[in-house]
Amino acid sequence: MNGAESLVQTMLASGLDTCFANPGTSEMHFVAALDSNPDMRCVLCLFEGGTTGAADGYFRMSGKVASTLLHLGPGFGNGWANLHNARKATSGIVNVVGDHATYHLRHDAPLKGDLEGVARSVSQWVRVSPDASAVAADGADAIRAARSNGGQIATLILPADTAWNAAEGTATAALPPAQHRPSPAQIEAAARRLAEPGAALMVGGPALYGPLAETAGRIAVRTGCRLIAPFFAPRIRRGAGSVRFEQLKYPGDLNAEILKGLTGILLVGEGPPVNFFAYPGKPSTPEPPGCAIDRLCERGWDVAWTLEALAEAAGVDGSEAVPRHELALPDAPAGPLTPEVVGMVLARQLPEEAIVVNEAVTAGAAIWPQMDMAWPHDRINTTGGSIGQCLPAAVGAAVACPDRRVVAVSGDGSAMYTIQALWTMAREGLDATVIVIANRGYKILRGELANLGVERYGRNAARMFDIEQPELDFVALAKGHGVSGRRVTTAEEFSDALARSFATPGPALIEVALSLS
Amino acid sequence: MNGAESLVQTMLASGLDTCFANPGTSEMHFVAALDSNPDMRCVLCLFEGGTTGAADGYFRMSGKVASTLLHLGPGFGNGWANLHNARKATSGIVNVVGDHATYHLRHDAPLKGDLEGVARSVSQWVRVSPDASAVAADGADAIRAARSNGGQIATLILPADTAWNAAEGTATAALPPAQHRPSPAQIEAAARRLAEPGAALMVGGPALYGPLAETAGRIAVRTGCRLIAPFFAPRIRRGAGSVRFEQLKYPGDLNAEILKGLTGILLVGEGPPVNFFAYPGKPSTPEPPGCAIDRLCERGWDVAWTLEALAEAAGVDGSEAVPRHELALPDAPAGPLTPEVVGMVLARQLPEEAIVVNEAVTAGAAIWPQMDMAWPHDRINTTGGSIGQCLPAAVGAAVACPDRRVVAVSGDGSAMYTIQALWTMAREGLDATVIVIANRGYKILRGELANLGVERYGRNAARMFDIEQPELDFVALAKGHGVSGRRVTTAEEFSDALARSFATPGPALIEVALSLS
Repeated sequence: MNGAESLVQTMLASGLDTCFANPGTSEMHFVAALDSNPDMRCVLCLFEGGTTGAADGYFRMSGKVASTLLHLGPGFGNGWANLHNARKATSGIVNVVGDHATYHLRHDAPLKGDLEGVARSVSQWVRVSPDASAVAADGADAIRAARSNGGQIATLILPADTAWNAAEGTATAALPPAQHRPSPAQIEAAARRLAEPGAALMVGGPALYGPLAETAGRIAVRTGCRLIAPFFAPRIRRGAGSVRFEQLKYPGDLNAEILKGLTGILLVGEGPPVNFFAYPGKPSTPEPPGCAIDRLCERGWDVAWTLEALAEAAGVDGSEAVPRHELALPDAPAGPLTPEVVGMVLARQLPEEAIVVNEAVTAGAAIWPQMDMAWPHDRINTTGGSIGQCLPAAVGAAVACPDRRVVAVSGDGSAMYTIQALWTMAREGLDATVIVIANRGYKILRGELANLGVERYGRNAARMFDIEQPELDFVALAKGHGVSGRRVTTAEEFSDALARSFATPGPALIEVALSLS
Repeated sequence: MNGAESLVQTMLASGLDTCFANPGTSEMHFVAALDSNPDMRCVLCLFEGGTTGAADGYFRMSGKVASTLLHLGPGFGNGWANLHNARKATSGIVNVVGDHATYHLRHDAPLKGDLEGVARSVSQWVRVSPDASAVAADGADAIRAARSNGGQIATLILPADTAWNAAEGTATAALPPAQHRPSPAQIEAAARRLAEPGAALMVGGPALYGPLAETAGRIAVRTGCRLIAPFFAPRIRRGAGSVRFEQLKYPGDLNAEILKGLTGILLVGEGPPVNFFAYPGKPSTPEPPGCAIDRLCERGWDVAWTLEALAEAAGVDGSEAVPRHELALPDAPAGPLTPEVVGMVLARQLPEEAIVVNEAVTAGAAIWPQMDMAWPHDRINTTGGSIGQCLPAAVGAAVACPDRRVVAVSGDGSAMYTIQALWTMAREGLDATVIVIANRGYKILRGELANLGVERYGRNAARMFDIEQPELDFVALAKGHGVSGRRVTTAEEFSDALARSFATPGPALIEVALSLS
């Protein structure tokens, strides 16, 4: 047994059985070890942003840590942006990064770089294995780290000789440390505070879906407080039967409206509301002046325990009538595709228990409200604000949940960051429907320039906002990656394309040509 | 004038007039400033790996520093791999990275991350502008840093308020510091050493093309030493009339053959030869045991002065008959496309003064020897070994040299890392011919697995080497990005496709379906 084999068997023994890989030479022994352990599912991505985004989507839908396999500093760099998104989502990922053999590192080989530095800039845990006999224990520690604090980015750097030299055995990841909890006194005070006028409970992480969302809903009913969800929810339950959160929006001005009148916000599993960017002369945060922010339970703390304790302190008894979204499918729209029409058609067609991945940066505002009345589903968002997460996260979600349809809704500019994920969808036969909302530009940037007080602009600015000239042809791009594609210009065509994709196993791409009038 | 305007005008005043951009909200005032300064050429790339690779290609062909415009940590992360390649090439680049406003950074906004950490892991110079009045001087310092030591990665982080607040004026970049030089005694000793048996002069950087390559050739003739060039040459002159370097290969075993018999290697502008990777039981470096390595002039030192001084010390008088490659175009091949045939066809068709960008990782070994006898041209290589540089570097080379045809030769796996660069070629109407050598897999990895002693492998390994299932369709991918494409399967078709592309302004893609028998 060599170091690489000891790591793969440590992973399997620890319940880590999925690897999103983009290997190079320095990972060849790891590849060989994967090969002799077919219980490990290996998913090849053609670009590392695909591997890290897929591992993130996989964690969000399965709660399980996957590994990525990356090639030295450049491979890690390519995966950085989606690790950033994953970190903001409290997703657990083990990055296995091959490096030069220990004795080769003193030479300036082409691929040598500051791998540890780039790894530390986005990982909560980084270790360089010193020799083959340490790899099993290091791997177990990496898995434990990735499972700690609700989910963390753990990066294990394996010099090539630690993979190929003889190792002594395998290890099993220890349980992660107990998550931090607020004190009973804090719980009691928080429960009292929620019953006062102008109070809101804002929850995040695992409290946005499943039983914890129910508990949060009951606490809100029992105490009479408002119940708020963040805009950048890692995963949130939507559609018929889901708990009716007041979900924040992207623009800070709208959030200031939503939060008007609040005197206190109690946070469980979520940070304080913050505007996506600062703007000249505007505040950084949207809550009203004087509104108290109580960070009862930070992201990564024990959200489940906190909510249960809070429910008990508030006197929740199970009889609370939690407000829920109801099924109310819109009438079939017709004609040109505005963002509203896109939302209506999608809401009508969405299959039950779909997983929707959101990176519709500008069109989303008109799409998502419609979806609250659709069949129940989960929605994944680009938590770190770094575009290029949508398609990779859809890959990971589909690998995690092979019995559910994944619907990725991306802007055209966003989709171009990690378009290679289409190929992995085709290869793995994933039930993923990729909807590209084509508005022919970084439309959000035009709005942002206006937000900053710049009203008129000329050629250089226009050339950086518009991505027409030439027009991207997403049907051709899909074909190039082995995915069938279709461009739609009316509600009827879009409806038909969705119905066909949802009825057909495997991936499909639909390019939605927005009516820009 | 605000900070952003002061920076753009500082750039223009300092002779930096090209910006490869992928901006976001935090760079909006910079975009507005670019807009009001139309002398700055802005080239939009759809992915940040495109911007950094393009700035690298631009520097290699023009010797001029360009700027990139990147969006916070994720934008920088996406550009990391090609900055790594640029750093290894001693290319000068100024990265302008927008960050949150200084006062917004204390909040955990979605895009907040360790921007400075990721920047430091690949940049030689990093500064965060503290306020708008500092931006002009900081920008001038960044340009000076990028021009120092032959070319460096300089990263200027601009919190948004330093861009939008009022600034006081502009600045002009000071001259970079004098480059380090060896001592006269070292020059004298080196010249004597080169005249001894078994000596070689190995040069890099600016000594691989132009007058310095001539000087290096004369020194070799005068002293009788061998003249060696690295495999990963940032830019090297090839084809008829070019100095006949012995260029190292990718495999360490072959380099050991090439360097056999040497007793000393004198390095000017280049590091010691090193194997790309370590392999079990093999040495890290290819030179013979006991061969002395003399690092006379490091990368980034004053290569021009060193070579001129060395020439003088060696008694070079201009009468030396420098061995050169001669024009000898191969006969027209016919039939299936092996790598050898690809090289023959390309050598026959290559226009004079073309710029060839090499990322043909496995097929290159059979292609490049043919090209030495073609019309004179420059070749750019993936210096840092990080694939995904080819298409972006072709963009930058074409922007730098609009009167020359750029020919990018990429493997299929490589091309998929930064395929979005095709769109920029179309938008800017660049005279770039992109040749994708389709061998349907990371073919190099199969060889690497064998190099490591693993002969047999199964499904998991095969699934990580092969990128068929589904087949990538590069003609469709080209169409998707607005570039005309053609797939060729014979020498005749390839020849015709090349002739048409070279005769037609603007970009084209040719997918070369290798005969895999």
